[in-house]
Amino acid sequence: MMPDPLLEAQGAAVRAAARVLAVASTTTKNDALLAAAASLRDRTAVILSANERDVEAASADGMAPSGIDRLRLDEARIAAMAGGLEAVAGLADPIGEVVEGSVRPNGLRVERVRVPLGVIGVIYENRPNVTSDAAGLCLKAGSAAYLRGSASAQGTNLEVVAALGEGLASAGLPKAAISLVEDTSHATAVQFMQLRGVIDCLIPRGGKALIAAMLEHATVPYVLDGDGNCHVYVDATADLEMALGIIVNAKTSRPGVCNAAETLLVHRAVSDRFLPMLDGALATVELRGDPAVRAAIPRALEATETDWASEFLDLVLAVRVVDSIDAAIDHVAAYGSGHSEAIVTSSVASADRWTSEVDAAAVLVNASTRFVDGSELGLGAEVGISTQKLHARGPMGLRELTSIRWVLRGGGQIRT
Amino acid sequence: MMPDPLLEAQGAAVRAAARVLAVASTTTKNDALLAAAASLRDRTAVILSANERDVEAASADGMAPSGIDRLRLDEARIAAMAGGLEAVAGLADPIGEVVEGSVRPNGLRVERVRVPLGVIGVIYENRPNVTSDAAGLCLKAGSAAYLRGSASAQGTNLEVVAALGEGLASAGLPKAAISLVEDTSHATAVQFMQLRGVIDCLIPRGGKALIAAMLEHATVPYVLDGDGNCHVYVDATADLEMALGIIVNAKTSRPGVCNAAETLLVHRAVSDRFLPMLDGALATVELRGDPAVRAAIPRALEATETDWASEFLDLVLAVRVVDSIDAAIDHVAAYGSGHSEAIVTSSVASADRWTSEVDAAAVLVNASTRFVDGSELGLGAEVGISTQKLHARGPMGLRELTSIRWVLRGGGQIRT
Repeated sequence: MMPDPLLEAQGAAVRAAARVLAVASTTTKNDALLAAAASLRDRTAVILSANERDVEAASADGMAPSGIDRLRLDEARIAAMAGGLEAVAGLADPIGEVVEGSVRPNGLRVERVRVPLGVIGVIYENRPNVTSDAAGLCLKAGSAAYLRGSASAQGTNLEVVAALGEGLASAGLPKAAISLVEDTSHATAVQFMQLRGVIDCLIPRGGKALIAAMLEHATVPYVLDGDGNCHVYVDATADLEMALGIIVNAKTSRPGVCNAAETLLVHRAVSDRFLPMLDGALATVELRGDPAVRAAIPRALEATETDWASEFLDLVLAVRVVDSIDAAIDHVAAYGSGHSEAIVTSSVASADRWTSEVDAAAVLVNASTRFVDGSELGLGAEVGISTQKLHARGPMGLRELTSIRWVLRGGGQIRT
Repeated sequence: MMPDPLLEAQGAAVRAAARVLAVASTTTKNDALLAAAASLRDRTAVILSANERDVEAASADGMAPSGIDRLRLDEARIAAMAGGLEAVAGLADPIGEVVEGSVRPNGLRVERVRVPLGVIGVIYENRPNVTSDAAGLCLKAGSAAYLRGSASAQGTNLEVVAALGEGLASAGLPKAAISLVEDTSHATAVQFMQLRGVIDCLIPRGGKALIAAMLEHATVPYVLDGDGNCHVYVDATADLEMALGIIVNAKTSRPGVCNAAETLLVHRAVSDRFLPMLDGALATVELRGDPAVRAAIPRALEATETDWASEFLDLVLAVRVVDSIDAAIDHVAAYGSGHSEAIVTSSVASADRWTSEVDAAAVLVNASTRFVDGSELGLGAEVGISTQKLHARGPMGLRELTSIRWVLRGGGQIRT
């Protein structure tokens, strides 16, 4: 495939801007964020007008109502985008943190220092708020944001990026530090994923098709934000009222998000007592169970192999009775997606086994899986929740958008 | 391409072994390392016999002498492999380290804990010592090692893995925790790079062709060990005797390694004095310079654009006179490979600019680039030096072979 010359030229401009941003002071970056927020507010009318055209075109193309809802902006949503930038300005700057340091026997002073990644690529679907949310975090982390949104939101995204660019310029930073790929074709998206030497880290925010395209085409380094097939395991020693509160919260407080629970595992020693409690407390939830569950809860449907592996993202819960904590751990190892896995137990031994043997981004003891979230864990804003094991695992905040540099200071040391 | 059923079955066995290794105690892992070292020593004769067959076959196939040298083992090399395993047993166990922790306002106790990656894949060329070196580090880091060596070394590697397996078994650990891919075909190597769900991190150790194959085919997460086109910049304020000592050390102490210097940049203010010193001190080194260098050092050849971008790995040095530290930083940004970049200066301002503006795994002030090495920086053994920015940057020791898990402990907290 011939490289797109426009993409190459834009990539070079983004890289040049990244070098400026990398050494910008915290004050300068915060000034840019606050000015960008003001600019978003000032330009609300023109952004909404562009968004209206995008929505009309998408409707004419037959986009589903849920897609239209994600695409559509209103004054409140633009105000929330501006507020998000202001919140990021209030977060601590991760750049320059000395992660560790020591003096070697030969007197060489060694530090590992947190530094910007350089250019962070973000490829995403039709929510225009991602444009400012992602750009704001990249800016604060000292990296240029190179954005590739969906074709359906392109008119809106161009206006949002123009507003953000005003913020950069007013703080004396290059507008190219927040750049949007102009050609929204699939072919250009593939080339975007292959901009080695331009993009230091690519973050896809989208569904399975986007992840599959990344695995097939990407040659730049990337961090994947995977599914959340999360479990709650009610141990033999669990406080059953606590367990009930946790599963109700984990399943129903916001069923469409990745840290919601999808499968409940119940130890056989307490299933006779717990399952009837569950039936009543989750009356609005469709239950899909194994034979033991269906014996206790007649309304439960039969759980299939597919159900154990599913992220329902809906008021549906798979339920299984297990004979031991070993069986629960094995079930999670076989079906979990490595996101968030909770045990409810009063046994120290069970809690210790769960936290050491269950391999997931987050393991929880006696708490709802819903806490696995950047703001709940004190990271401030997050760019997603990584279910991979390299670089970033779990909620990704500003720190996860940085790299490390070794800094060695000597007085003429040579290696013998 | 049809998946190789043998590879799939072996992958499942390696994953199962990884779950056992992940919870093995430090004592058990050290026992296995020491027993593996003893087993390597005990089996020296059978390993050397297999190696002799590999060497004969490779010679008959016309392998170059440098390749044969890398392939060939002798008693001293096997003793060094055993000693390497014993040294790894002596390193601190990275697993279980609490990286940070806090209590949230709702009482939830949050920790980030260092945990094993799971299965670490290593794909490498014909040095059989990599088999035990890589396996030993993976074992200590609590991960299974899934190894794919070169066809030419397969007979040797099988014997080495058998010896290591004895060590695992004697400590009660599954032999599959160190496994070697049996089919050394290219097609199987490609499938190995695509074992998503089996391999958590793949580390290639080899040349440009291997890296290119990884970029094209790999769908598992990986860490790349890139080139080292390292620079030394002699600033206007440099102590020139110090600068001379550093460049001589960086260029000549071991020219074939990645942390050797390849290009020298000299500020014009000191070039009249420094270049003649250089000419004498690097008499055994071929110099390739710009016109200013060639005017001062008649024997210097003309440096080409290719030279600035080259990792010579030989007694060859490109030399350029620059007008400012800005020009030096720009040169490194244009041609550097992001490995190790040194400045020699007595100016605080220049040192600060270098360490903040030069984007590389390691930046050095008044010290030789040769210090960028796991053992010199206190990491113990290393599996390579990463020039990428995600997960691991610079020398990769045991810590870089681990992941992080969030552990949340509560008393029934639910999210409101």
